[in-house]
Amino acid sequence: MGLIVQKFGGSSVADAARVRNVASIIIDTYKQGNDVIAVVSAQGDTTDDLIEKAAELNPKASKREMDSLLSAGEQMSSALLAMAIEAEGYPVVSLLGWQAGFRTDNVYGSARIKTVQPERLKNEIGKGNIVIVAGFQGLNGFDDITTLGRGGSDTSAVAIAASLHADRCQIFTDVEGVYTADPRKVEGTKKLSEITYDEMLELATLGAQVLNNRSVEMAKKYNVEVEVLSSLKRVPGTIVKEVAKMEKMLIRGVTKDADVARISVIGVPNTPGIAFKLFSKLAAKNINVDIILQSVGRDDTKDITFTVAKANGELAVETIKGAFDLTDVVCDTNVAKVSVVGAGMETHPGTASKMFEALYEKDINIQMISTSEIKISVLIDLADADKAVAAVHNAFFPVD
Amino acid sequence: MGLIVQKFGGSSVADAARVRNVASIIIDTYKQGNDVIAVVSAQGDTTDDLIEKAAELNPKASKREMDSLLSAGEQMSSALLAMAIEAEGYPVVSLLGWQAGFRTDNVYGSARIKTVQPERLKNEIGKGNIVIVAGFQGLNGFDDITTLGRGGSDTSAVAIAASLHADRCQIFTDVEGVYTADPRKVEGTKKLSEITYDEMLELATLGAQVLNNRSVEMAKKYNVEVEVLSSLKRVPGTIVKEVAKMEKMLIRGVTKDADVARISVIGVPNTPGIAFKLFSKLAAKNINVDIILQSVGRDDTKDITFTVAKANGELAVETIKGAFDLTDVVCDTNVAKVSVVGAGMETHPGTASKMFEALYEKDINIQMISTSEIKISVLIDLADADKAVAAVHNAFFPVD
Repeated sequence: MGLIVQKFGGSSVADAARVRNVASIIIDTYKQGNDVIAVVSAQGDTTDDLIEKAAELNPKASKREMDSLLSAGEQMSSALLAMAIEAEGYPVVSLLGWQAGFRTDNVYGSARIKTVQPERLKNEIGKGNIVIVAGFQGLNGFDDITTLGRGGSDTSAVAIAASLHADRCQIFTDVEGVYTADPRKVEGTKKLSEITYDEMLELATLGAQVLNNRSVEMAKKYNVEVEVLSSLKRVPGTIVKEVAKMEKMLIRGVTKDADVARISVIGVPNTPGIAFKLFSKLAAKNINVDIILQSVGRDDTKDITFTVAKANGELAVETIKGAFDLTDVVCDTNVAKVSVVGAGMETHPGTASKMFEALYEKDINIQMISTSEIKISVLIDLADADKAVAAVHNAFFPVD
Repeated sequence: MGLIVQKFGGSSVADAARVRNVASIIIDTYKQGNDVIAVVSAQGDTTDDLIEKAAELNPKASKREMDSLLSAGEQMSSALLAMAIEAEGYPVVSLLGWQAGFRTDNVYGSARIKTVQPERLKNEIGKGNIVIVAGFQGLNGFDDITTLGRGGSDTSAVAIAASLHADRCQIFTDVEGVYTADPRKVEGTKKLSEITYDEMLELATLGAQVLNNRSVEMAKKYNVEVEVLSSLKRVPGTIVKEVAKMEKMLIRGVTKDADVARISVIGVPNTPGIAFKLFSKLAAKNINVDIILQSVGRDDTKDITFTVAKANGELAVETIKGAFDLTDVVCDTNVAKVSVVGAGMETHPGTASKMFEALYEKDINIQMISTSEIKISVLIDLADADKAVAAVHNAFFPVD
């Protein structure tokens, strides 16, 4: 009994049968005595289809027009979902982002939510209505439609939950929750019943892709309890909240990120401030740097190695070659980052050695290492990545 | 040099090539030094496809949700058209109905425009922008999206033209203008260069289907000069305005309307007020009655014959049978109405006889006759309709 915000992604409402399934989940929640606000994404491939249509007319279409175009996707899915609930005889109303009170900054294509004005939502809930909200969209200071960027519907849902102090925010996906590793690729994975925001953030960044990162940050900031669960199988999912029971679990999961390029800069002059200059040039080009390794090289030079997203690899090389008198700058994309994540490792110094041992036993060479309080990442050969995830996962979660 | 409002229907923007064609029409108008506001319908079959999707989930979906769903069609087409204009390097912005200031009553599905608040439109025009407006839609007093009903984009365009005192409102279609008869079916038809609002109204009602009737009524009320022209062939169209030059033309056109059913009520008691009672019963069921013929029948009874839209035929029969003790009520749908329209006939008493002569020569029997100041209609056998139109057209516009 309370206010539940639910979010359903594009695949959950891809066709009429799935829309009906989502309607039944919402109705069941409502019948249990809850107020329900459901945020919905565009159906299936709608967004991609619209992007394609736009590209045919104008490959460089303005983001303002793209936002007006793309927001139609959620407009259609939210109305259709409302109709499916009407068909079952329950009171329902669909609201567009601007009707639901979403006010954003003026950055078309990836707007940030400034506020969710809750009047209309409260009003509809007060009337006993189930409320369907078109996700991913808002209104900016020019009274123009903006979109929150890919995965933005997660953020829409968390923002409503924060604004209305909902009792829970349920993110429905096509997986049953957050696992200790990708269950499609690794044997013996376990579904986590709970996880902290920070752990979820590390997992999301590293490629688990269950929850949009911005939504987790927002949930953490406003202390919104988030549940990740399946829209197809009605079983409890994974709850993301501030203080999760530790369950005596050292780590929460093992992840693989293949979207990584390693840049090696050989023969950097061994002068003060050189690293600062190098990385500020990259920052000026909006290139995000992840792991950094600096070694003393030959003579008066040193080598700097770092990783960036694959798409930024060539740009990073050009940027450095252009800014410095360096020719030996190499980009290697045949690498992957494998990580273990878990708040428990803070108090368990053995985590790193356990991970390295598992990799050693499989004869996998570690190129770089990066650690945070709740994460250990290693950079290895791309060809070894899946084998590495399985080995590390088995070390921490032995298959029974 | 002035403000031109243009309207493009769904077939005019059905695919990328047609969107580009429309973009070039708009740009040409803009390049001639005009301010341009272009109202656009949903692409091709979008609206029908959305109606089908809705029906699959809920055949009795609320009109509120239908309006939110359907208005996405124009949202997409207006953004896409704006992108096509951007691609050519011209300043443009697309506006949804509510952004363009359309405020309507609360009748979902067929809302009436209460006002067009012109601030945003004026503001965008002031910045030098071409403005694309999503037709067919507005916002009601609940801040909910409404649609104006089928053909509503014509009305959107005329309303903007009226609100901003535009110099002309151009309605682009797939025909080159208003013809003296349907050029696909009758030989030797002529395109009219001018026509009055009243004549256009008669032609529209009778089935010419070039311009939505509500838009013509609104154009007449606010004295908006409307031009009907082709989006595919760049030639002058037909101008609809208050005082058209008569061009020494007796009539403007010959039309056929096959969407008609004739109801015969035999043996109605010959008592005062019976006709009033009968037609008020039909009005209560929202059945519009067109031609009415009352004859003295046998004994103390009379016969009443009238026409209604085909879809209302059976309902009219049931209504009368249910309300009165009458069993001999017959519906005949094998009829058609053929009409000649023209303000010139007021002063030319020979029009009717010329029309009847043409029908007589082709051996076509006239079942009913109805006349107004600018129109003569006859009800005939459906099978004779096309032959009748050709014969009457040839009488007034002899093929050279």
